[in-house]
Amino acid sequence: MNITEAIAQSGPDLNPFLCRAMVEMAPKEDLGRGGDITSEAMIDPEKKSKARLVLREAGIVAGLPAALRAFELLDPNIEVKLHLYDGQRGESGQTLAELEGSARALLTAERTALNLLGHLSGIATLTRLFVDLVSHTRAEITDTRKTLPLYRALQKYAVRCGGAKNHRLGLDDAVMLKDNHVALAGSFAAAVERIKSRIGHTVKIEVEVDTLVQLKEVLHLPVDIVLLDNMSLEELTKAVELNQGKKILEASGGVNESTVEKIAETGVHIISVGALTHSVNNLDVALDMIGPLL
Amino acid sequence: MNITEAIAQSGPDLNPFLCRAMVEMAPKEDLGRGGDITSEAMIDPEKKSKARLVLREAGIVAGLPAALRAFELLDPNIEVKLHLYDGQRGESGQTLAELEGSARALLTAERTALNLLGHLSGIATLTRLFVDLVSHTRAEITDTRKTLPLYRALQKYAVRCGGAKNHRLGLDDAVMLKDNHVALAGSFAAAVERIKSRIGHTVKIEVEVDTLVQLKEVLHLPVDIVLLDNMSLEELTKAVELNQGKKILEASGGVNESTVEKIAETGVHIISVGALTHSVNNLDVALDMIGPLL
Amino acid sequence: MNITEAIAQSGPDLNPFLCRAMVEMAPKEDLGRGGDITSEAMIDPEKKSKARLVLREAGIVAGLPAALRAFELLDPNIEVKLHLYDGQRGESGQTLAELEGSARALLTAERTALNLLGHLSGIATLTRLFVDLVSHTRAEITDTRKTLPLYRALQKYAVRCGGAKNHRLGLDDAVMLKDNHVALAGSFAAAVERIKSRIGHTVKIEVEVDTLVQLKEVLHLPVDIVLLDNMSLEELTKAVELNQGKKILEASGGVNESTVEKIAETGVHIISVGALTHSVNNLDVALDMIGPLL
Amino acid sequence: MNITEAIAQSGPDLNPFLCRAMVEMAPKEDLGRGGDITSEAMIDPEKKSKARLVLREAGIVAGLPAALRAFELLDPNIEVKLHLYDGQRGESGQTLAELEGSARALLTAERTALNLLGHLSGIATLTRLFVDLVSHTRAEITDTRKTLPLYRALQKYAVRCGGAKNHRLGLDDAVMLKDNHVALAGSFAAAVERIKSRIGHTVKIEVEVDTLVQLKEVLHLPVDIVLLDNMSLEELTKAVELNQGKKILEASGGVNESTVEKIAETGVHIISVGALTHSVNNLDVALDMIGPLL
Amino acid sequence: MNITEAIAQSGPDLNPFLCRAMVEMAPKEDLGRGGDITSEAMIDPEKKSKARLVLREAGIVAGLPAALRAFELLDPNIEVKLHLYDGQRGESGQTLAELEGSARALLTAERTALNLLGHLSGIATLTRLFVDLVSHTRAEITDTRKTLPLYRALQKYAVRCGGAKNHRLGLDDAVMLKDNHVALAGSFAAAVERIKSRIGHTVKIEVEVDTLVQLKEVLHLPVDIVLLDNMSLEELTKAVELNQGKKILEASGGVNESTVEKIAETGVHIISVGALTHSVNNLDVALDMIGPLL
Amino acid sequence: MNITEAIAQSGPDLNPFLCRAMVEMAPKEDLGRGGDITSEAMIDPEKKSKARLVLREAGIVAGLPAALRAFELLDPNIEVKLHLYDGQRGESGQTLAELEGSARALLTAERTALNLLGHLSGIATLTRLFVDLVSHTRAEITDTRKTLPLYRALQKYAVRCGGAKNHRLGLDDAVMLKDNHVALAGSFAAAVERIKSRIGHTVKIEVEVDTLVQLKEVLHLPVDIVLLDNMSLEELTKAVELNQGKKILEASGGVNESTVEKIAETGVHIISVGALTHSVNNLDVALDMIGPLL
Repeated sequence: MNITEAIAQSGPDLNPFLCRAMVEMAPKEDLGRGGDITSEAMIDPEKKSKARLVLREAGIVAGLPAALRAFELLDPNIEVKLHLYDGQRGESGQTLAELEGSARALLTAERTALNLLGHLSGIATLTRLFVDLVSHTRAEITDTRKTLPLYRALQKYAVRCGGAKNHRLGLDDAVMLKDNHVALAGSFAAAVERIKSRIGHTVKIEVEVDTLVQLKEVLHLPVDIVLLDNMSLEELTKAVELNQGKKILEASGGVNESTVEKIAETGVHIISVGALTHSVNNLDVALDMIGPLL
Repeated sequence: MNITEAIAQSGPDLNPFLCRAMVEMAPKEDLGRGGDITSEAMIDPEKKSKARLVLREAGIVAGLPAALRAFELLDPNIEVKLHLYDGQRGESGQTLAELEGSARALLTAERTALNLLGHLSGIATLTRLFVDLVSHTRAEITDTRKTLPLYRALQKYAVRCGGAKNHRLGLDDAVMLKDNHVALAGSFAAAVERIKSRIGHTVKIEVEVDTLVQLKEVLHLPVDIVLLDNMSLEELTKAVELNQGKKILEASGGVNESTVEKIAETGVHIISVGALTHSVNNLDVALDMIGPLL
Repeated sequence: MNITEAIAQSGPDLNPFLCRAMVEMAPKEDLGRGGDITSEAMIDPEKKSKARLVLREAGIVAGLPAALRAFELLDPNIEVKLHLYDGQRGESGQTLAELEGSARALLTAERTALNLLGHLSGIATLTRLFVDLVSHTRAEITDTRKTLPLYRALQKYAVRCGGAKNHRLGLDDAVMLKDNHVALAGSFAAAVERIKSRIGHTVKIEVEVDTLVQLKEVLHLPVDIVLLDNMSLEELTKAVELNQGKKILEASGGVNESTVEKIAETGVHIISVGALTHSVNNLDVALDMIGPLL
Repeated sequence: MNITEAIAQSGPDLNPFLCRAMVEMAPKEDLGRGGDITSEAMIDPEKKSKARLVLREAGIVAGLPAALRAFELLDPNIEVKLHLYDGQRGESGQTLAELEGSARALLTAERTALNLLGHLSGIATLTRLFVDLVSHTRAEITDTRKTLPLYRALQKYAVRCGGAKNHRLGLDDAVMLKDNHVALAGSFAAAVERIKSRIGHTVKIEVEVDTLVQLKEVLHLPVDIVLLDNMSLEELTKAVELNQGKKILEASGGVNESTVEKIAETGVHIISVGALTHSVNNLDVALDMIGPLL
Repeated sequence: MNITEAIAQSGPDLNPFLCRAMVEMAPKEDLGRGGDITSEAMIDPEKKSKARLVLREAGIVAGLPAALRAFELLDPNIEVKLHLYDGQRGESGQTLAELEGSARALLTAERTALNLLGHLSGIATLTRLFVDLVSHTRAEITDTRKTLPLYRALQKYAVRCGGAKNHRLGLDDAVMLKDNHVALAGSFAAAVERIKSRIGHTVKIEVEVDTLVQLKEVLHLPVDIVLLDNMSLEELTKAVELNQGKKILEASGGVNESTVEKIAETGVHIISVGALTHSVNNLDVALDMIGPLL
Repeated sequence: MNITEAIAQSGPDLNPFLCRAMVEMAPKEDLGRGGDITSEAMIDPEKKSKARLVLREAGIVAGLPAALRAFELLDPNIEVKLHLYDGQRGESGQTLAELEGSARALLTAERTALNLLGHLSGIATLTRLFVDLVSHTRAEITDTRKTLPLYRALQKYAVRCGGAKNHRLGLDDAVMLKDNHVALAGSFAAAVERIKSRIGHTVKIEVEVDTLVQLKEVLHLPVDIVLLDNMSLEELTKAVELNQGKKILEASGGVNESTVEKIAETGVHIISVGALTHSVNNLDVALDMIGPLL
């Protein structure tokens, strides 16, 4: 299929307009002021070639639309055959997609495409690890706002590909009352009253608490979510008991691959994990040219 | 000092114009269409506050200008006292800088600033690890083009902060002849001849070889650097012998914290490490508010 | 005070970074390729002047930061004395702010500033009318997504200045299930189940219903808000009874100055009004030069 | 026809490049960082659908290219059948265009497209009202610079669709000498002399006068247009007599639907009306999905 | 004075907002992804320096605000002492301005600043040559639309600095009827009638004619300017006679330093010269560092 | 062939993505806020036409992809038949390309396209002159950084089309040590040592010297290129002797069509010529409409 269509199909949960806009200028950075001086000297502009995006290690794929967008910017007429889609698991050696188009375009966009695909697949793969670790509980894994500036939308998309859910997208789509806000207002009750008078009916309110005493204070206030920050497993268990299903309870702080299972077993609803987006190992993906240039 | 000056001083090796331009739109992503709805509801616009950027773990600092730029965009009148500079090592608990300005601005820009600072310091810290591992040899560590699109300049800057050097910045500032190019030209000699006829006198030529046979073919050609790709330690040692100081020899492939020392000891000049920028653990940095809001 | 500070102070609920970014290019449109050819020919660049932003009719002020931003772009050293703030009511003839700076800058930015201020104050004034009409009920007025492209944030801000609240900011911060979505899923229950499995815990779900039968179907599903679309007053009253406080009920359709009071008296929680942003009369604001140019 | 062609055909007087560039980022605002979370969860990416742009009230159509551009950005392969063109009158219930393409794209772009089309058609419809009121006279209706920043070109285009003409496009394409300029120069004659020495031969000069005395002073000067500001009907009639066809006479101030006819009958050539663009009622346009999704 | 003020003062006829916006990204191109690697390695960021912009040959200065803007972007705190202003003549060796600020900033912005200043001064100097050659006649020199894309405003500004006037700024601020348009309409009269029915009262109409026969046809039509394209001196003289002062007559085609005087002496009002902007010799300007770095 | 393909084929050495991005906004400047008011009034949008890009004087063609890009932006469906390619010599009267598409698009984009093509061909033609003058020597001609801001990439591309080579692309892809840097370091040796410790292995170092004494000092340092600034022919000859092939020797200063031959005959390797890009005569290219509009 044509590469524009492949961008829309390969990531069913990523709006293709957003993807196209976000990756608009990516190749510019690599091309600088001179272009790909090696390929432009060595390969004639009319040469065509075939290539394969291949996994060099197993993982969850995320970012195919972004990677394809990088190729599309260099040659809008590339033809694509998709073998895997974002959100699916691939094994080492598996082909994600086959591409056919301008040989120069394939070589020039290669690194940009792989950098996007490797990073986003790394996030999805790490996310799936956390999701699998808590799958025997009711807890859901979410990301945080610890994303790289300009990558909020793409990194949160990769988290969704990994099977987890998104926490708020930014500072404007949910309220998060923290210690400074509460201190300024004088009490949790005063803080919540003030914020309720300002925000619309589509916005949820989350309050951060550090202790069970604070939790009790908050449980009878009109808030939707309570963030239990850096609590011990005992405190989390106690918090779930105290809550009696009234609020959505979210645990955060000290969450890693060793601790997440126990945290989930306390009965909290949500576990938010900064590492999903801020400490990522690239998934190894390669572009293999197939046969001679045409 | 004023925050604009602090941006220029805190990263002596980062052009402040480039830094300002690159971080221009970062807070937009977090503010979305509604702004920081929590802080804007809870804190009066004229409130002032003091805060401290503090390391929560030891590492090499990188990205202070970028982090300060995020704050500057929210309040251009913040005053800054710098305690550490990019490229220096800080211990856990150490203060990097003190800030005083609009309380809203400090809270609103906090996450954007920390996301930048944590990521870039993570790169610098990892880089220093590699640099230290080879410090008893003549080998130099460099980065690669495996950077996140739009972060090429900042990530390569962080590598410099970590004490390593930059490989080429993009596709246009050095030639890299790979297997496809050589195959098209027919031979290494033909490929080098063709590229020499096109490029200017300020551009270096690097050729990738996989075998010692190829290396020998290349050693008498007018190229500057030979990339020894995925060679064993024995091959690398042999390559250094064959080279007799004629070319700059660069090793790549399979480089990690366990292997880099041995690779360096073969006598190669350069070791390029993709992981420096593509697989990074965030360095834990926090913003601590000091005292009550004013 | 300096105009940059005045931008932050004059609109306590508008993030100054967002405002500055949104108005960044506004004067460009009026200046075109030649600049203000009249003022540049007739007034020397070093001339200073004083001017006053004055209401020509009574209304609620909104958009002072945006208007001041237009002036700041022409002369960053203008001094401002604020008399009224966004969200306050002003009478005809009342001075909003006094400005002193480059005479050219004041005249050149005048129209851009007034166009912004008049439009946004028009929204706030209309909004206050609706808010006042329902103030004896528990109903809250909100806006809709019927905003002019590129003006979503500013127009929604003006609605807040008028005393109403914002509905969702865009397609990504709350779910709105409409007839097409429900038809595709097969039933309200199936639609809600599908969406619940995808979205995070900070996102509210709203479902649109046209009939009381549909309402009953929805009341026991895990949704937060029910949109009662184009219902008669009788139906709305009945809907409030059926609801028994379970969901947030929102009325929309056919809302205008004549009907809003009765709709509010049915007991619905929210009334969303497209006209607040899509059919606005400019509030008449003028810039009066004071005394001779200096 | 393909949607790109439909953009060019549906608005014969709007340059398609300008239109495409102006609407480039419009959907971004609605999609935010998460996209259309409802449609992306509920509708598969390969679903196709048909829809109809329909007038819900009678009026003059304007903005079809802009609305189509919003759809094109979400799906460049939409097919369009045009029933009406910009500048034509449509009755309530009439179909403007039929669209067939990605179901997601149609639903996601719907609001952006309608917001543009409703606003611009509102301008055209209001404009036609004024044009019709003066059609028995020689007076022509024009707009002013009272347009919403970033909408100058589109709003002025809508005025043309309504059958009126454009006043100057900005500060650089015609001279407008006002009281401040004249005061600085010392006299009308001195002001005109100064400006004549600066501007090129393609630029017209307009001078604003408040009284008949001023008019007389100006009539023998080399200016093209005289703006008669806020004059009574008697003064306007007198002005036309005094003029004896020498200058283009433009009336402004206090122009509304009740007054415009009498003003036109005084014999002035031009009546400029700020309300055409600054106080607009949206024309009600809807997108109706046709049949089931495919 | 501060450099921001110097930008406004040094070019009295250039709107400083336009200038700042146009030069916003210029240094980015020279800095690329790595910055000024030489200066950043060799000069400490806190070093200050003084420098002088000096003419290396005599000419008319144009572009000081643009050049200063380049410096301002690198260091907003540079202090400037202006010796000459745009539009003035300077002799070889004369100092245009003295600058004091960050040594790095001065060296890094040097080339960008000089490239702008040299090019624009080259235009102004060439323009003055033409203006002087026709100063004994009533003819005025104007530019054309033969400007480098993205430089329309700056190049036309430089023409004004040289003492000539601007022709239309673009395709939208004056009508130019050429052979193709006339052929489509069927006759000059039909073409003019059609265009008159579309354009506003502030827009002038220019018609291109190649022969005196065509001129006669056009003289009684309601057009403002007649372009006499590529006519001989005899034809031009005859055209002036035929015109009897009715229209503004503009000569174009084959205008150069040898021919312009004779053309002007035919009595035409306007001579438009493409070479003013399309074939420009850089004026030699240098930046001399003064004394040692501080 | 389709115009998108023609953009890629007509300039084999210009990356089509870079070209498309660079020319993205060019027509905007000419269209302003109103579009091409003449063509839009006079020509129906569905009219088609054929046209020819024709040389009006002999020269080396450069910029066809940029010119075609301007047309593509107005009508993406134009069909193109290429007769010449960038870098080839054309004679006066020769057709470069034939275009067929929207008549409006052809007329509206004409000037933008010709301005780009004429300027870049002017550079290529001048460059070829210099290249031919030194073809009997080993010297190579290069450009400098004396390019118009925002045109670095396109102007350097035109230089390549003319047969010369590019000097460094910006401040970040090669080191250039000048007098100020050396003075700060204390000596050439100290300066080189400092820079060597900072820069990567792909970056070449160039040092500027004014005298033979300085040259001798530099010859045994690890630098790649020596810039011999403003030296006499005798000094240059002596420099070549002293060098004994150790460094690349570059001559600059006082290079013009009269002097370049002698300079080349001294045996220097490189002659850099600022005039190639800073003082360019437009090559006369025209667009001729073929036959009647369709």
